[in-house]
Parts: sequence; C-alpha cells; structure tokens
Amino acid sequence: MSDIGFEDKVTPQRPILTLTTDFGLSDPFVGVMKGVIAGICPAANVIDITHAVPAFNLLEGALAIWQAWRYFPVETVHVIVIDPGVGSERQPILSRMGNSWFIAPDNGVLTLVERDVRRDGGLVRHRSIQNPQYMLPVQSHTFHGRDIFAPAAAHLAIQIERGAVAAESFGPVVESILQLRIPEPIHNSDGSIEGVVLKSDRFGNLLTNVAASDVPDTSGGWQIEIGSRRITRFVRFYAEAEPGEVFAILGSSGLLEIAMNRGSAQQATGIAVGMHLRLVPNEREFPN
Amino acid sequence: MSDIGFEDKVTPQRPILTLTTDFGLSDPFVGVMKGVIAGICPAANVIDITHAVPAFNLLEGALAIWQAWRYFPVETVHVIVIDPGVGSERQPILSRMGNSWFIAPDNGVLTLVERDVRRDGGLVRHRSIQNPQYMLPVQSHTFHGRDIFAPAAAHLAIQIERGAVAAESFGPVVESILQLRIPEPIHNSDGSIEGVVLKSDRFGNLLTNVAASDVPDTSGGWQIEIGSRRITRFVRFYAEAEPGEVFAILGSSGLLEIAMNRGSAQQATGIAVGMHLRLVPNEREFPN
Amino acid sequence: MSDIGFEDKVTPQRPILTLTTDFGLSDPFVGVMKGVIAGICPAANVIDITHAVPAFNLLEGALAIWQAWRYFPVETVHVIVIDPGVGSERQPILSRMGNSWFIAPDNGVLTLVERDVRRDGGLVRHRSIQNPQYMLPVQSHTFHGRDIFAPAAAHLAIQIERGAVAAESFGPVVESILQLRIPEPIHNSDGSIEGVVLKSDRFGNLLTNVAASDVPDTSGGWQIEIGSRRITRFVRFYAEAEPGEVFAILGSSGLLEIAMNRGSAQQATGIAVGMHLRLVPNEREFPN
Repeated sequence: MSDIGFEDKVTPQRPILTLTTDFGLSDPFVGVMKGVIAGICPAANVIDITHAVPAFNLLEGALAIWQAWRYFPVETVHVIVIDPGVGSERQPILSRMGNSWFIAPDNGVLTLVERDVRRDGGLVRHRSIQNPQYMLPVQSHTFHGRDIFAPAAAHLAIQIERGAVAAESFGPVVESILQLRIPEPIHNSDGSIEGVVLKSDRFGNLLTNVAASDVPDTSGGWQIEIGSRRITRFVRFYAEAEPGEVFAILGSSGLLEIAMNRGSAQQATGIAVGMHLRLVPNEREFPN
Repeated sequence: MSDIGFEDKVTPQRPILTLTTDFGLSDPFVGVMKGVIAGICPAANVIDITHAVPAFNLLEGALAIWQAWRYFPVETVHVIVIDPGVGSERQPILSRMGNSWFIAPDNGVLTLVERDVRRDGGLVRHRSIQNPQYMLPVQSHTFHGRDIFAPAAAHLAIQIERGAVAAESFGPVVESILQLRIPEPIHNSDGSIEGVVLKSDRFGNLLTNVAASDVPDTSGGWQIEIGSRRITRFVRFYAEAEPGEVFAILGSSGLLEIAMNRGSAQQATGIAVGMHLRLVPNEREFPN
Repeated sequence: MSDIGFEDKVTPQRPILTLTTDFGLSDPFVGVMKGVIAGICPAANVIDITHAVPAFNLLEGALAIWQAWRYFPVETVHVIVIDPGVGSERQPILSRMGNSWFIAPDNGVLTLVERDVRRDGGLVRHRSIQNPQYMLPVQSHTFHGRDIFAPAAAHLAIQIERGAVAAESFGPVVESILQLRIPEPIHNSDGSIEGVVLKSDRFGNLLTNVAASDVPDTSGGWQIEIGSRRITRFVRFYAEAEPGEVFAILGSSGLLEIAMNRGSAQQATGIAVGMHLRLVPNEREFPN
C-alpha cells in the first residue's frame, strides 16, 4: 500500500498511552482497561487525561483531548472512549494526526484535534479498526474500552516500542469520520465577535470558543456582553485582579475565559455552558 | 513444605500491583502506599482499580476486585484495603488464587474471587502475613495499607520480578478466610429466578446478582418484576433502545443489569441497591 | 560554588516524581503535566499524592505533602502546585530538604516540611528556579504547573537518573521562603494543651495540630474539650470503640484525631476545621 512507507518507521521508544473517558473513577472500568494494556504491552506508560467527562458528553471529551494532546511527545497514542453508541454500527477508529495517534469511536470526539491538525497542514489519515487480532477474543456489546480500544492501543504501542508501525494492519483507510458541529466564533462587520461558553473548569473559569487569535488586541480595547452583564476588565493573570473581581483572561488553552481571582466565576455570575457572548470593541477608553 | 514447588517458579517479569481501597483520592493515603511500594520495588507497575469504594463497604470492594482481576496478566498482585477492623485481631492475608495473588485483610473482601476460582477448579491457598521483614519497621494501628499491605505486596513483587516466589516466607497457611454472605440467585420450580440489586455504577446502571449463565435465553422470553415495575425489554447494547427507555441487558461483567440509553436507570426508576427482583418467563410473547 | 559537592552526587536510579495540586481530576491539567514530564524524562515514575486540595488552600496543600513525603524514597522529587499567585512575582522554588527535593511556588506550601526537616537537623536549601532551559519555550501566565514546575521537575529527574544533580543550574540560592502561620499547640502551666482542628479527612476523622509528642500519656489520663463537647475516650484503633462512638486517637500521621468507628466524626459532631480544642489532664480517673 502506498502509505506504508509514510507511517512505517518511528523512533523506538517507551510507548506512551493516554486515556480520556467518561467512565469516572468509582467503578473498575479504567483499571480494567489498564490491566488489558499491561497484559499486551508491559512497558507502556499509561497516563490519564481525565475520566470525568460528563457521561456521553462528546463536546467535553473533544475539548479535553484537544487541550491535552499537544503537550505529549511525538508518537503518543491517545485513547478516547466517550461512547454512547457502544455495540452499535459506529466504527472504532485509528487516526494518524500530526505526529500522534488517536484511537476512538467514530462519533465526533476527535473533531477539534482534526480541525487544528488540518489548519496546521499536518497529516490526517483515519482507519477503521477491524483486525480481530487487536481485540480481546470475546467482545461484549457494552464495554469496548476494554474489549477493543485498550487492546488495539496496546498492540499499536508494541509496534511503536519496536519502531515499526504497520497501520494498515489495523484496517482500511476511511475517507472521513464524523464531525461534531462545534460553533466557531463569528466576526461581524462592526468589529464585534460573537462566541459561546463551552465549559466551566474545576476553578469555575468559563472557557469560551473565542481563541487568542480571534482577539488581536485585548489591552483595554474590548468589553464582553453576556446575558445582562458587561465585563470590561481584561487581565493577564488571576492575581492581577482583586479577589472576587470578574474579568476576562486568555487562558492556558489559548481560549478567552471569564474568570475570577480566588473564586468561581461560574458560581458568582451564573453564566452557564451554552450562553452566548459578544466582544465589542470600545469607542472610548474603559477604565482598566 | 510441600507447596514450595507449586508456588515457587514464575516467569520473571515486570511486576504488576493493583490497588482497590475505600481511601478516596482527597487524602494522601493512596499516594503514600505508592511511595512505600516504589521504595521497595522500583520497577512495579502500580494500577488503581478504584479508591472510591464507599467507606467500610466490603460488598462493593468484593465486587470491584471481582469485576477487574480476570483482565490482569498472570502473577498480578491485587491489593485490596477496605479495612474497618484495622488494628484489631483480623489478620492480613496473602492468597494464591488461580494464577494471581491477593493481599487483603481477612474480612470477606475476597469472597467473590474465591467463589469463582473454586468454581473453575483453580488453586486457592491462603496465608496469614506474619513476617515482620515484609512490613514497615514501625506500624500504626490505623493505616495498615501503608504499614503492612503495601510493603508486603512490594516484597512479593520483587520475588515475581526475580521469578521465584517464596510464599511460605510470608506466613503460615490458613485453612479458610472469612466469607461475606452474598445472596445467590434462587431458581424456583416455576422457572422464575429471584435476585437482588448489588450496586449502581457511574452511569446509573443497576447490577444484579443474576449472571448470564442463570438466564440461558433472553430473546424476549422473560420479564423482570421489581418493586411495582415490570421490565419487558431486553437489549444487547445501550443504543439499541430509545433514549430514556428502561431495559434489561447482560452487562460487561456478565451480570444482568437494569439500564437506560443515555440516562441513569437508577435515577429514573428509583430502584435501589438491595431491592429484590424476579425474572419470570413469559407465557405469551411480549412485544420486543 | 561551595555547595556543588554537597548536592552533586546521588545514586543513579529510576527517578520518582510526586504531584500534589488543587487541579482536580475533571480537567486535563494533571494529564498535561504528566505529558510534559514524559516528554523530558520518559523513565520517571510519576505518583499522585492528591489533586483534591481545595482550590487555593495552601494549608491543606502543606498538610498533604507533609503527611506523604517521608514515605517516599531518598531523592524523590515532590512537585506541589497550589498556586493562586500564578503569573505574579512569586518565584518558583527548588528546595533540597532532607534527602528529598521539592518544587513549588514560594507561597508557604512547604512550611510544614521545612519545619520538620529543621527540627531533625536536616539540610534545607532553597533556590529560585530561573533557568529558562528548564521551562517550556512559551509560558502562559495561568498554568505554570505545565510551563515551569513540570518541566523543571523532569529536568531534575533526568539528573537524578544519571546520578549527578547540578542544583546550582536551576537558579540562585534564596535565604528563606514564605512561611504559613500554622498554629502550634500551646502548653499551659496547668498542664492543659490548646490546639486547633486542621482538617477533616475522607472518613470524617478530624486531624488536629496536636502531635503524639505533645501528649506523652493518653492512657485514660486526659479529656478533650471542644465546643460544648467533652471527649473522654481514647482508643488505639477504630474497631476498639463501639460503632458510632466518638473518641480520640493518635492517627497514622502522628496527630491527635477525633474520630468515630464506622462513621464520620465530622458529620456526627459538627466539629469544623478551625475550631479550638483543649486537652485537660484528669484529676480523677475517667471511665475508659
């Protein structure tokens, strides 16, 4: 096949696998996946991204792996199992994107990674995982994390450890995989930008879909309208604001966030995921 | 001793330890256990099964390790610390069951594993851990996970790494260990089966004590009575049902579950752990 | 520099890093830190102490690492990121204390470790981390766990793996770092001891600042006054008491705790963190 040469050789190394799921940590699901992996590829370094994606929430799963994957070494295998369609016709996918590997159900959870890799001109190639030798001998209809995704990832890890990945052995190339419709920020002719709140993090910081690159200058030149609230203060770091003050900030994922110093902006403002916001350039100077 | 030859030789390998506790992840308890293990057996691959067993809940601990252990490689050392009797006369136990090792207090938490290993004709041999060389020099009365179970597991891991386990060096064989009374399903003469709800998982799926092997045919031939509710729908996978529909399913642990597609059966039905259920064969066909 | 010879040589070994943060496990923050570490030092064994320190709570962070660090091997690198001042002028610190390493913001989170190491006559030397080669090339203003603390720890881990630590390459020695004001127990002239409740653990056990060494004899000779409550019962282990009984116990961290057998003392008594208590020696014998 024409792509063997392309994906074939990697530097032999201790393989890294990451796990992103909605399984939680109360049940033995995640531990079981790690047991399956350890049985196939004992040298694998398995790292949890998060297992607290809200159940069945594909958008939050897509965000979690998107926030994390760039900080992992080349050839890392990212396994994402938010899988409400487990047991149905939806296919398990192996994707080569950039210099990383992704194993996930074909349900949109890779949308944001693929968008960025394509934007950067990186390689994107998806395959349907069909090789039964990369699955457990008996497969349930309800736990493919254990029966398909974990063993497939571990078999890929063995190939990475040896320095030769035979991606074509997993299954045939598929032209495209399902994409979530995630709203992009809208740039209006009056210079304003419309966005939406994507998630609230552990600290109550509200992440929006507006990226740093959407807002070329935040040095006091903007205000944010959201609900009945106006936010006129932009800061560079949390402690720059007074405790309890609500402000906007470019967060560590490169997204505009609404946040608070030593408090939860989400609790203090009642702003919820899905609410729309508008960035409006100032006519006159606002106090900063 | 006559059993040395039996347990002695194992294939030298990177040892795997698993941890199942009710310690939670808020306090440093689990991290401390891993520190003790790393100091004794630096090569050990330590995998969390779960630390969210409800405090002192032996049944949930027994279920968690039972659901998980078969998916780990041969010679894995499973450490289970749900231990309300810590500091009292209850003994720390090292059990050889099947091709795996278990280290736990003698309080019933190994009941389900032992039941299955005996059913399959596997080896079961319990020892009381008494060798002070396998414990921390100073032992508290309240944290034997740190002072006894973790170091004993790590010393066993070293022996596995070297390929020679001296099980007799841990302590003397004990004939039997404490067994939890976990209700078995009852097969009535009218063909019905009586069971009980054992736990609710992260998704709100309700696991019962009725196993797949108890229900030879679920192709529309049964209904479930539980409380005032009748469940007539059996599916193979979650997405086969409509969102919000309550149904029965054979789950990934081999147990009959009451579940819902994209929702929590536990929340929707109010069915609680401990409730009794009855599987009744259909006289006439039910719509499926 | 005069201290090179002192800190220079360590036994080459698989490096151990621990993580203590207030990041929670819902967001990808912790996974991202581990990705950064794996990219720099693939052999590192990364162990979570806890990520559930309440947001911005320096005292609980200081307690968590203090409870844990002694149980890790010599040369372990402990990374503590509770960091409300991220992005401000507060410095990232590398501390050599005892035979361990600590990387944390200069905000007091190392107070309890330093107190104990000094008390034991151990080495304490702090450095400001200033070497940009030990940081990610681009640093955010809001996530130094990823951009500074994780890479610095991983670079130190490489040096430990090789057996030669060049501590001076991280940055200059600083004379002292910020100390939290954590109340010490007060020994009154009438023999009584005044203390305070520091935290409630996962089981509802209430940890006080009174250490075992403060209370030379607990064999029935004391009672505790806290709020309107008197606690007269001291036990050695939980199961020594009746279920539901409230008692005092010397816990596994060496601190006096108020606890309950098979229940939460915190819930049962309403005793809260910050409440003051008084240990009073008995004139007459109390029933024990």
